[in-house]
Amino acid sequence: MAKNNPPFGGLLRALALCWVIILSDLIGEALSWKVRHYDFDVKYMFWSPDCVEHVMMGINGQFPGPTIRANAGDTVVVRLTNKLHTEGVVIHWHGIRQLGTPWADGTASISQCAINPGETFTYRFKVDRAGTYFYHGHYGMQRSAGLYGSLIVDVAEGEREPFHYDGELDLLLSDLWHKSAHDQEVGLSSLPFRWIGEPQSLLINGRGQYNCSLAAHYSDSSISNECNLRGGEQCAPRILRVLPKKTYRLRIASTTALASLNLAIGNHKLVVVEADGNYVQPFAVNDLDIYSGESYSVLITTDQDPSHNYWLSIGVRGRLPTTPQGLTLLNYLPNSASKLPISPPPITPKWDDYNHSKSFTKSIFARMGSPKPPTNSDRRIVLLNTQNRINGYTKWAINNVSLVLPPTPYLGSIKFGLKSAFDNKSPPESFSAGYDVMKPAANANSTVGSGVYTLGYGTTVDVILQNANALTANVSEIHPWHLHGHDFWVLGYGEGKFSQKDEKSFNLKNPPLRNTAVIFPFGWTALRFVADNPGVWAFHCHIEPHLHMGMGVIFAEGVHRVGKIPNEALGCGLTAKMSFSGNHT
Amino acid sequence: MAKNNPPFGGLLRALALCWVIILSDLIGEALSWKVRHYDFDVKYMFWSPDCVEHVMMGINGQFPGPTIRANAGDTVVVRLTNKLHTEGVVIHWHGIRQLGTPWADGTASISQCAINPGETFTYRFKVDRAGTYFYHGHYGMQRSAGLYGSLIVDVAEGEREPFHYDGELDLLLSDLWHKSAHDQEVGLSSLPFRWIGEPQSLLINGRGQYNCSLAAHYSDSSISNECNLRGGEQCAPRILRVLPKKTYRLRIASTTALASLNLAIGNHKLVVVEADGNYVQPFAVNDLDIYSGESYSVLITTDQDPSHNYWLSIGVRGRLPTTPQGLTLLNYLPNSASKLPISPPPITPKWDDYNHSKSFTKSIFARMGSPKPPTNSDRRIVLLNTQNRINGYTKWAINNVSLVLPPTPYLGSIKFGLKSAFDNKSPPESFSAGYDVMKPAANANSTVGSGVYTLGYGTTVDVILQNANALTANVSEIHPWHLHGHDFWVLGYGEGKFSQKDEKSFNLKNPPLRNTAVIFPFGWTALRFVADNPGVWAFHCHIEPHLHMGMGVIFAEGVHRVGKIPNEALGCGLTAKMSFSGNHT
Repeated sequence: MAKNNPPFGGLLRALALCWVIILSDLIGEALSWKVRHYDFDVKYMFWSPDCVEHVMMGINGQFPGPTIRANAGDTVVVRLTNKLHTEGVVIHWHGIRQLGTPWADGTASISQCAINPGETFTYRFKVDRAGTYFYHGHYGMQRSAGLYGSLIVDVAEGEREPFHYDGELDLLLSDLWHKSAHDQEVGLSSLPFRWIGEPQSLLINGRGQYNCSLAAHYSDSSISNECNLRGGEQCAPRILRVLPKKTYRLRIASTTALASLNLAIGNHKLVVVEADGNYVQPFAVNDLDIYSGESYSVLITTDQDPSHNYWLSIGVRGRLPTTPQGLTLLNYLPNSASKLPISPPPITPKWDDYNHSKSFTKSIFARMGSPKPPTNSDRRIVLLNTQNRINGYTKWAINNVSLVLPPTPYLGSIKFGLKSAFDNKSPPESFSAGYDVMKPAANANSTVGSGVYTLGYGTTVDVILQNANALTANVSEIHPWHLHGHDFWVLGYGEGKFSQKDEKSFNLKNPPLRNTAVIFPFGWTALRFVADNPGVWAFHCHIEPHLHMGMGVIFAEGVHRVGKIPNEALGCGLTAKMSFSGNHT
Repeated sequence: MAKNNPPFGGLLRALALCWVIILSDLIGEALSWKVRHYDFDVKYMFWSPDCVEHVMMGINGQFPGPTIRANAGDTVVVRLTNKLHTEGVVIHWHGIRQLGTPWADGTASISQCAINPGETFTYRFKVDRAGTYFYHGHYGMQRSAGLYGSLIVDVAEGEREPFHYDGELDLLLSDLWHKSAHDQEVGLSSLPFRWIGEPQSLLINGRGQYNCSLAAHYSDSSISNECNLRGGEQCAPRILRVLPKKTYRLRIASTTALASLNLAIGNHKLVVVEADGNYVQPFAVNDLDIYSGESYSVLITTDQDPSHNYWLSIGVRGRLPTTPQGLTLLNYLPNSASKLPISPPPITPKWDDYNHSKSFTKSIFARMGSPKPPTNSDRRIVLLNTQNRINGYTKWAINNVSLVLPPTPYLGSIKFGLKSAFDNKSPPESFSAGYDVMKPAANANSTVGSGVYTLGYGTTVDVILQNANALTANVSEIHPWHLHGHDFWVLGYGEGKFSQKDEKSFNLKNPPLRNTAVIFPFGWTALRFVADNPGVWAFHCHIEPHLHMGMGVIFAEGVHRVGKIPNEALGCGLTAKMSFSGNHT
């Protein structure tokens, strides 16, 4: 009837919409979904994360930023105000898939325009799934500058985790350089190229010690200068306080700019139960490898001699380390936190013992009952990772294209058909069959580009990440690749060049779901995901300087299904230009 | 007839407009007006201006940026591309009045939105008057970071300067800190406050020597380490090559972040003929004081013993100097440039010999025939300069308001009536009569604000800049105030607090026209200008950290007369928001 009564059509539709909103609020209330509000002011400040003062990016005067905590099903709202003087800023919510809110993914040049100084952008997104996540800057090298924090999603109220624990300890791991992220960036973009080198310090919850060691008094300590910390310092370790005979969940996330890490606790087994927000088949290890962009939950049982405390140590893997271990204490209460363990901190496995790493990584399987991958894929994209020189500049390239992000974010430019915003030619699906991944490229030259892989909406996509020799002979590095907007199944890892027959080895039974997966030196990693999240998504090496050097690709899927992008996400480049001409919806 | 024929009205108007354009182009051609095109790419780079490597802001890989050179009447077009990774950028064309092009003044938050990374903004403006100018960043502390260069306008072709010279030497003076501008900015904005301190080096044309001296071999040299420079180094001085028995025009401009300077040349008199693009009554001095934001032309005659070379030195005035003199050589050809002068470099007058400074400043009068000021003013604004603490932060305030620039540039927000873009309350016209300028304020607290002084279009405005005691007793500093969009007549200088009777001492006969004027410690300076340039214009202390601390005000005049502001200048804040709603013209 309303159909026949146009003057009231709009009103009725508005009323219907109101009902939907009211109903969903009521349902939310009934199920205890909450809206979690945060106000974040981003500003530079002086801070001494490793007992040496630096200019760090902080949130609300804190480094690392405040921990966001919510329950599955909740909506998180972060009003992010840029209090920097000349720099834009965005924050990416790492591991949150942003279903229906691709403009809230917090990737400058991809999902939104950077927030200008003095302005506020409101991120509003649903955290649909419990898990261990974190957030970080995704513009220039602002993650390296310290823009990060934890994001932890508990199960929905009334629901239970599939494992028991008595307490929780959260560890956000990072690495720190004494050279500013800004100067690092200039070096990476210069001719001749200046590499950032190894970090000066490793941080646990934003705390490390550069010029002293908590473990100096052990005879085999490499640093002999003991730290004289009382606990109030910005670099004093956050002590992990536990009671004996209990089970604790350690939530561990790595937002390092570069370092691959290994974590161990003296005398204690780690039982891995979660990876990147997905439950895994529990398995016990003495130590755990964690790459930038990954997160894990491990259970520990405080079943050791309760009269002692124990070291928790992190150390560098995969690169000849020059960085001392990061340390904190597992403090069995009621022992004093100043009581040092009887044994020195656990030793990090040798940096190039890749078999140790592979053994850990290949032990990860999805927990029974987890979603299984489709049996077949619709498309396979093979991505060759190479180090290159382009006009003399050192870069990373994928299938010979080094990613350069355009000034106009893809999400808006694709949605509004602004074809001049980026390279319209799709990047290659694969690389030349004759390429020898075991040797430096005969011609290390390459191209830069901003092209997009357009994925059929709802299709199943396989990605084979193919590692190769870098510029120097006999060198191939670890790269942890992170996918935005999705989890993928990790179907397998292999050595050398991927070939068709390797498909037979794919694990389709219980492959783990992750958002980050590593490629080992000279090896390949096979991933599968369903392109069912309308938006534009980055897929890139999570080592920040590598991304800066072009090591990433862009996936676009179902962009015509994307809802109304907030204007605030579009106020730059060609989408801003479009707004002035009035040609927008 | 066209009037009666509406369908052709638009066409006729368009044809008429075409004729105007064609005619003005023809006239321009006939008078030899040219369009001078420049492409500027702004990027950070490693550079050693004072023999120590820093990260500097460069243009087209150069520091300082390229010199812009044009003739009066020409149009300068600069396509400025931001090649920074996360920072916005603008460039201000210091001394160019931007008649009819207020959006090209290059002031972030005032005349335009900062240019985003990867984007290009085209500055197009007429240089209507010959003179010695320069350009520099006007966003955050980007001038301190090295974003500056010379802009020199010769008389129109066929015209002659009112003085003769055989050759020209251009000197752009600046100061350099080893701490990055970025870290300086964080310190200024921090609690506790961290002052930037004195510069490490003074630069002449971007070149200085930090850890060595060109004049080390003189017995009274303070630095004993002789420079070992061949000339190809980035820090090697630009030698001033001259022939004997000639007259040279030295164009001297100061873009220092902080330092007030004195310049002298051994054995040579300086005849001042131009200040800030205006001819002055020629007068001879042994040395010249130049404050940040000022420019001068001086004539020198190479009438000294031609078998010698002579030192040109610059040194710090008005602050207890810890910075060595900046040096270069006046090289009488055919002498070798490596032949050191027989006498050491001229000694800079004692830093606090203000009588010396005042004597110089008060010797400057307009050249006969220069425009005279209106006899009376329509409005007098008295601006008290105070140092304050606001919520503990150290600031500068004008009539108790410390300027905080809004995210939406004033030019757009005022033109489009976006009243929520800034404080609508006008800042005070004066300060309380009882304020004792000779003592620290009883209450040093103050407020921040973004209010605007709206000036009646075409009215004559007097500004009395009133200096005062800073936070510390018996301290009052030099502040060189720079006005955008206009020149002003400097009517006089006085000691202590300005009072009505001081008006009698105003020089209305031959006051110099300037765009920058200094206030001396505990003194006042009286200025007069006509508000006849539609636009929004900053008027501020040209010491960059002082401006950053709030030492400025905003004048708006005839904004309704401003023509079409380019969309590129409006793509941020509320003007961007407006564009999405379609409520714009």
